Amino acid sequence: MSHTDDQGRTERHNERMARKKEIMDARIAAASEHRGVFIVNCGNGKGKSSSGFGMVMRGLGHEMQVGVVQFIKGAMSTGEERFLRRFPDEVQFHAMGEGYTWNTQDRERDVARAGEAWEIARQMLQDPAIGLVLLDELNIALKYKYIDVEQVLADIAARPPQQHVIVTGRGAPQAVIDAADTVTEMTLVKHAFAAGIAAQPGVEW
Amino acid sequence: MSHTDDQGRTERHNERMARKKEIMDARIAAASEHRGVFIVNCGNGKGKSSSGFGMVMRGLGHEMQVGVVQFIKGAMSTGEERFLRRFPDEVQFHAMGEGYTWNTQDRERDVARAGEAWEIARQMLQDPAIGLVLLDELNIALKYKYIDVEQVLADIAARPPQQHVIVTGRGAPQAVIDAADTVTEMTLVKHAFAAGIAAQPGVEW
Repeated sequence: MSHTDDQGRTERHNERMARKKEIMDARIAAASEHRGVFIVNCGNGKGKSSSGFGMVMRGLGHEMQVGVVQFIKGAMSTGEERFLRRFPDEVQFHAMGEGYTWNTQDRERDVARAGEAWEIARQMLQDPAIGLVLLDELNIALKYKYIDVEQVLADIAARPPQQHVIVTGRGAPQAVIDAADTVTEMTLVKHAFAAGIAAQPGVEW
Repeated sequence: MSHTDDQGRTERHNERMARKKEIMDARIAAASEHRGVFIVNCGNGKGKSSSGFGMVMRGLGHEMQVGVVQFIKGAMSTGEERFLRRFPDEVQFHAMGEGYTWNTQDRERDVARAGEAWEIARQMLQDPAIGLVLLDELNIALKYKYIDVEQVLADIAARPPQQHVIVTGRGAPQAVIDAADTVTEMTLVKHAFAAGIAAQPGVEW
């Protein structure tokens, strides 16, 4: 590439970036409301729970108190649980503890456990000292109607105004998507599992 | 709902779960290879970087050594950086430190900084003591051709066999998607930003 080409490329890049900066500055100026956001991570791809735990990490970096309830996972010890239990003063962590429903095959027990877990979640959602609440795999409990979605949405709506809440899991009911501020669908493009690679510590749990 | 209805529902649920368990057991048996996976989080939705940091948390919970390079972010102090710097024995953290390119408007400086950051990433990718490497926003550096994609993919392919690597950011080149084991597109369904809510600590950084 000649010096002239290189210079032209740099100038075009700089013009594009200047326009982008103007657009971003205007958008940032327009988005001025500071309040707790309700975030949903759904879809069949990887990253729903891990994104929630990444936000937990961010919250901890900003000296927030954090609450976590895992609605399905918990039969096995996960990396996130082992790590977060190192911070009992900063993190309230509750894992429902009965594994996936296809391992328990007991609807009544699942309903009872999910209800108990929701009571713990509700206490977090009533505590203004908690800046961020992660309700991991809640969508699955809602999809199977282990917990009443209207009750869940009422409790989330009644939380302290500055508290963020993150709901994860496949099969989010439409009412949950409608109520949320930010919704991401984690879309599966490809997954190592399908190519014969096992679920592994640090990646899947 | 009558008792009979309730019983029928429970039986149908149990049958469905039993079939699901069979399918899952077969899939788990087939996925038996244990090796480092190459994961890409792309798309326009929220959750690409935060999912990477959630996997960092999982890795730390499994006593892994972790390496993080942030290719674009770093002009401001993020929650993830503040948190991870608490663990200097477990986490090597490098933030490139010049903010988004639309704030710098200086292609040559961006190219130089991205190249320096890649040298640090390459050292992590050559270190078998590091179990998980997060290359945050690398896709953006590749999209703007600040770093050569073929060199990047060669370095990733040559990493220790058990090391996991996660690449995040919009605009992933097709060659990166082709080379990865697991790819998730974070699809934007809606975002609080568009409704006038500011980017906030704990959520966006």
